[in-house]
Amino acid sequence: MAKKKNKLKVIFLGGVGEIGKNMTLLEYGSNILVIDAGMTFPNEQMPGIDYVIPDYNYLLQNKEKVAAIVITHGHEDHIGALHFVLRDINAPVYGSKLSLALLEHKLAEAKVKGRRLIPVEDGQKIEAGCFKVEFVRVNHSIAGAFALSVNTPEGVIFHSGDFKMDHTPIDNNAINLTRIAEIGKKGVLLLMMDSTNVERSGFSMSESNVYKNLDNIFAQNEKKRIIVATFASNIHRVQQIINCALKYNRKIAFSGRSMINIAEIAYDIGELKYPKDKIVDIDKINKIPYDRLCIISTGTQGEPMSALTRMSQNDFKKVVINDKDTVILSASPIPGNERLIYNVINNLYKMGADVIYQSLQEVHASGHACVEELKMMFSLLKPRFFIPVHGEYRHLKQHIQIASEMGINPACSIIPEQGMAVEVSRKEIKRAESIPSGSILVDGSVVTDDSEMILRDRRHLAGDGFVIAIVSKHSIDINPPIIISRGVNISEKLNEDLRENIIREVMREDIDEYDIQSLKQLLRKMIAKSLLKEVKKKPMVIPIIIEN
Amino acid sequence: MAKKKNKLKVIFLGGVGEIGKNMTLLEYGSNILVIDAGMTFPNEQMPGIDYVIPDYNYLLQNKEKVAAIVITHGHEDHIGALHFVLRDINAPVYGSKLSLALLEHKLAEAKVKGRRLIPVEDGQKIEAGCFKVEFVRVNHSIAGAFALSVNTPEGVIFHSGDFKMDHTPIDNNAINLTRIAEIGKKGVLLLMMDSTNVERSGFSMSESNVYKNLDNIFAQNEKKRIIVATFASNIHRVQQIINCALKYNRKIAFSGRSMINIAEIAYDIGELKYPKDKIVDIDKINKIPYDRLCIISTGTQGEPMSALTRMSQNDFKKVVINDKDTVILSASPIPGNERLIYNVINNLYKMGADVIYQSLQEVHASGHACVEELKMMFSLLKPRFFIPVHGEYRHLKQHIQIASEMGINPACSIIPEQGMAVEVSRKEIKRAESIPSGSILVDGSVVTDDSEMILRDRRHLAGDGFVIAIVSKHSIDINPPIIISRGVNISEKLNEDLRENIIREVMREDIDEYDIQSLKQLLRKMIAKSLLKEVKKKPMVIPIIIEN
Repeated sequence: MAKKKNKLKVIFLGGVGEIGKNMTLLEYGSNILVIDAGMTFPNEQMPGIDYVIPDYNYLLQNKEKVAAIVITHGHEDHIGALHFVLRDINAPVYGSKLSLALLEHKLAEAKVKGRRLIPVEDGQKIEAGCFKVEFVRVNHSIAGAFALSVNTPEGVIFHSGDFKMDHTPIDNNAINLTRIAEIGKKGVLLLMMDSTNVERSGFSMSESNVYKNLDNIFAQNEKKRIIVATFASNIHRVQQIINCALKYNRKIAFSGRSMINIAEIAYDIGELKYPKDKIVDIDKINKIPYDRLCIISTGTQGEPMSALTRMSQNDFKKVVINDKDTVILSASPIPGNERLIYNVINNLYKMGADVIYQSLQEVHASGHACVEELKMMFSLLKPRFFIPVHGEYRHLKQHIQIASEMGINPACSIIPEQGMAVEVSRKEIKRAESIPSGSILVDGSVVTDDSEMILRDRRHLAGDGFVIAIVSKHSIDINPPIIISRGVNISEKLNEDLRENIIREVMREDIDEYDIQSLKQLLRKMIAKSLLKEVKKKPMVIPIIIEN
Repeated sequence: MAKKKNKLKVIFLGGVGEIGKNMTLLEYGSNILVIDAGMTFPNEQMPGIDYVIPDYNYLLQNKEKVAAIVITHGHEDHIGALHFVLRDINAPVYGSKLSLALLEHKLAEAKVKGRRLIPVEDGQKIEAGCFKVEFVRVNHSIAGAFALSVNTPEGVIFHSGDFKMDHTPIDNNAINLTRIAEIGKKGVLLLMMDSTNVERSGFSMSESNVYKNLDNIFAQNEKKRIIVATFASNIHRVQQIINCALKYNRKIAFSGRSMINIAEIAYDIGELKYPKDKIVDIDKINKIPYDRLCIISTGTQGEPMSALTRMSQNDFKKVVINDKDTVILSASPIPGNERLIYNVINNLYKMGADVIYQSLQEVHASGHACVEELKMMFSLLKPRFFIPVHGEYRHLKQHIQIASEMGINPACSIIPEQGMAVEVSRKEIKRAESIPSGSILVDGSVVTDDSEMILRDRRHLAGDGFVIAIVSKHSIDINPPIIISRGVNISEKLNEDLRENIIREVMREDIDEYDIQSLKQLLRKMIAKSLLKEVKKKPMVIPIIIEN
């Protein structure tokens, strides 16, 4: 009896905006390897939503197959769904020391206990069912970032993770190009590669270049208090800011919950280094002269509750901004956050501070490879097949163009999408049947993959508000209609008119008095029509009939 | 008896985000000169609002003083409030032929008739009370743009309008630097200057550079249908696209309401030139082979109802995008619109089109002066005082820095804000008492300067929805409580619990049954608490008590 041949599949779960980023599965027979499990922030179509994670129902249904979870790096969009996934699935988790330390903190907060977190290093190999995974060091805007070289029964799949090439990184651990070259020489079946910076030509700037500019700014602002905002997880950036502060004989205060947490976590595992006595608690900075202090803060994206945003609104008692402050935003805007960030900058200026940000000086280096770096990876790895990942559709499309310039026939490339399964063998790459997949929206404590109606209502209410008419059908003479409206401008006169019209409609003799649905329908139409005519708005209209 | 000396005041009205842009008044004794009256789009704190205009109550109160309204150029943020202002104030309006043609169209739509619109040309001078205004040609992303040189009793005020310096503009009408130099030589009291591009070093790119890149793209896409999106008002850009299409023997179809309107208006006054027989109606493009057609469309900012956005969503029957299309976005994102625009680009790619936009090729030139151009204006005009305008606070602040490098003492500069009045004389510049001023929000047909409550409700509803509980106090046994909720996830179980709790509260014997306010308060708290506990959300909670 012929045995049914197993197929190697790559399955893409989750992703709002960016594709092939939050969670990827490699599946072969009864083996599943999970690559990352991250979250994304909601887009403007999802008001009120806290965050979005991949729908991992497929994984739940195939729980027993999950051999391991491997983490490329510790950013939220790669580990931010793991406290959900690990609650349901107790598979071993492999990642760098920093990734796991950050994950551990998350799991502790979510009260998920007893999970197997196994730290790995550059060059280390682990076995997970039929897969052998080698972790290959890359550079990124967080320490402890890996690419993955996965030996599968069909050949090697190389997954770049989020990466850049930095020949002068802060910790001297440059991307392991030698090993990448060796892997390429042995032959790569499929390359999956970060597409974020596919629109930027040339090479990315080295992280250590940022230091020169920071040093310059510190030198020019020796009389000022210096506040630097950056991503808490960008340990190397934080390290550079610390080094600069120490050089100019300033004490350091961390500000913002995630900055304080991550600085501690990174210090404990030795990723961040500083003399403890140079750190002051943010509550005690008033004792330090301005010119002897550097505050390292969260809030580079103008997040409403972040330390920097609150400082800019004079709503952060510990740090009151004034004309003796120089604020550096050491990050660039994530598309969509521009307006929030510029509000923060404008407000800081209004309070008298000097503000230095990316448009003015190079105080940030991207963590993602630019075009020439991507080309180098193609050169070294010479993959047979290619799947661009980590980017919006336009990035992936342009990445295929670059791959084609590097000799990969576009027929050997596939652009992934949410729920897509790609079957890959020595001979071919093709779409397989998709997995039913979507996003899980975390809305307060409600976790749902079916919230479209709730969101539609919120969007409707946001634009036009609501009008509710409460009609006591059988006692309308003693209980006149009550009209409740919010978010829509209804004058006393219009309110009066609506109530009169409701009474008229309810009293109509041609209405079947037992047909409540028709009466509701009638009232809804009448009210909607009046509002469109009188105020040109289309609020949500809900008539309530009280029957007894 | 000593006569009270008149003061020269500059008054800034309106402005959401950008300052000193939408509307500026010069006032001296019983003379007011109005410079521009424009609108802005609402920010993310104003859901449902259509647009925002300056609160011009001060102008209404001083109606009889208004000597003239002068228009720098025809963009919406400079003329978009004039159909309101001119409804109330019948002052003569001066501007370029194009500005007035666009205004006329607006007034016709708003049914405002019989206004005095007087076209002026470069170098022309008009009198308005005690002011003499000279119109000075500048370059900008719309034809017919002027700077203003205003002779006042205290000296010359030079207002740049929105401007750039283009030595090779499309219509050969470069900025009148010679005249600006003369004005500077005679002496300028106060300069007010566009700050938009204050963060960009060097010189702005000439509009004619765009042509070379467009030509290139047309040459490389000779087999494709070409769709170019740009701002309808950017007549010179539209002209260049037309010229390119004609060169490559393509017919031209205009798409999008404002594109069709403005192309016609500009053609009629001779600002836009094309052979009429090369234009095809967008409804009839199916008869034209793809490689013989160029569509010029609106929608560069991802506006939800625009032609290009609808094409990208396969919701525009006249143009169905496919892999034989090349789409050029000849504009750059206005900050805040990035996500919308990238959605459009992603969707166009998904439908198979090639997409070319600013990050990939230079298919756009900014309409605003960069740092070296600003410096040149300081050099030529050598003003005694300076007020940076047209920018967010950060831009204005940085503009003061540039002014200071050009020899203007920061004490001789003032950053304006909404409602600010600045008093300027030969001797000094200083803040005068502010004008009570704000923004008027246009919300459907409701025009209000006091909509904060409405907006607060909309923002609340957008994030958390609402819960309304209707309680028939005296017949709760036969009319059990009704709970209506939208935009918040309430399970059947939670709904049941809430109703039971309401009944329990209403039946409590320690409640004064006539104290409806306290009962409402009690129910509101109880419901809010349950929801925060059960679903971690804070919806708007409205209890309604029916008493009879």
